[in-house]
Amino acid sequence: MSDKKPLILVSNDDGIFSNGIKALAEVAAEFGDVIIVAPDRQQSAVGHAITIEEPLRSQKLKVTDRFDGISVNGTPADCVKLAHGQLLDRKPDLVLSGINHGSNAGINILYSGTVSAATEGTILGYPSIAVSCTEFGLDADLSGCKEAARRVVKLVLENGLPKGITLNVNAPAGPFKDMSWARMADSRYVEEYEARKDPFGRPYYWLTGKFELLDDGTDADIRLLNEGYATVTPIQYDLTDYDLLRKMADVDFE
Amino acid sequence: MSDKKPLILVSNDDGIFSNGIKALAEVAAEFGDVIIVAPDRQQSAVGHAITIEEPLRSQKLKVTDRFDGISVNGTPADCVKLAHGQLLDRKPDLVLSGINHGSNAGINILYSGTVSAATEGTILGYPSIAVSCTEFGLDADLSGCKEAARRVVKLVLENGLPKGITLNVNAPAGPFKDMSWARMADSRYVEEYEARKDPFGRPYYWLTGKFELLDDGTDADIRLLNEGYATVTPIQYDLTDYDLLRKMADVDFE
Repeated sequence: MSDKKPLILVSNDDGIFSNGIKALAEVAAEFGDVIIVAPDRQQSAVGHAITIEEPLRSQKLKVTDRFDGISVNGTPADCVKLAHGQLLDRKPDLVLSGINHGSNAGINILYSGTVSAATEGTILGYPSIAVSCTEFGLDADLSGCKEAARRVVKLVLENGLPKGITLNVNAPAGPFKDMSWARMADSRYVEEYEARKDPFGRPYYWLTGKFELLDDGTDADIRLLNEGYATVTPIQYDLTDYDLLRKMADVDFE
Repeated sequence: MSDKKPLILVSNDDGIFSNGIKALAEVAAEFGDVIIVAPDRQQSAVGHAITIEEPLRSQKLKVTDRFDGISVNGTPADCVKLAHGQLLDRKPDLVLSGINHGSNAGINILYSGTVSAATEGTILGYPSIAVSCTEFGLDADLSGCKEAARRVVKLVLENGLPKGITLNVNAPAGPFKDMSWARMADSRYVEEYEARKDPFGRPYYWLTGKFELLDDGTDADIRLLNEGYATVTPIQYDLTDYDLLRKMADVDFE
């Protein structure tokens, strides 16, 4: 019976027709029934944005000959929320987001629509995994990313995930050296904008950004990725710094 | 000399002409020189979105008779990044974001443009504080929020903040009972969408969302706010769950 197979919801931020989401759907299909619900267009760097001032629309379509999908005129987080609240006949057993074209490691995790779709899955109570490829190219070799995703999906379907945790997976294009647990590397952007003048002499600014790794830890995700590893980082959506909260307990506000 | 006063950058997500940002600028002016750099329009629930596919433009203007400002056609995080990278003559000593019209407590912290502007300040290395009022009304009494902001700004200017930490402040409209440190309450939205048909019979969905508090801890921000307190939550942008990372160190991927 098809009903006994796990239902796996697949989303992304590059849009429903990207190569990456098709690759991730193929991995998901090895483990269960697949439904793709993803943005109708490119939504990179939208972070955890959700749509509140406008209505959402959805459209059923064929993503490939093999996979049915539903496109949504919203953000990645919108897609997972709407799938959960309206679009699915039964609740998913797993939420996957990706494969993103471009890494989501270090500080980039905060800006990532891919990761936010998975985090939204976690908030809604589903085990959730984000998967990204370090190569931006839309025709990158995703075989290693698919293998990394396969191993993490297997681990999560067999063992579940603790409440409040999302797994953030990154892998290089092509084969990886090995897989490793990793933490989010301390990093930032410097020299962020290029100032130009429009034909009328008015200034405008393009975000360019030189990425700076501030972290020499051997378990930092970006460092491991640079060395050819695939990385898995457990991230939490509870942002409270509990150590500091304990230290501040006696500090009064005058 | 004006140069000896701290420079305080004020941003928000409700737009540069909102009452909340004017109220926060008035508090900032008690401590230093104020520059307002904020979105040219309402940007609620954009989370940590940044603009990468389009150029940003900025425009100098008077926010009030008292305060100069610069509006930006981008997100709250864009405003802080562009202020840091291009718009300011000297680096700010403090970044404030708010006062938001509506609370940013519990899970709402993740969706909040207000909080993301402050988090972006933290990423860039500045002590940063987000301030929100639990009332959505644009004409809410912000006197208590201003007093809470004043006390937290004083604490931070005198003591600084640890690296990677943002303070997230919420207060009720009108006077508060007392101020308290708090953690981000476990919470979520249920029954999220209302389905309607357009004049052509096609479905569309409005995000409605019933908020559900899943947390009965006495130090949870939402609970303290419901009891009339102003709350201060230290939040971190490093999302790594270190406890789980340590536990998983021996778990292999097969």
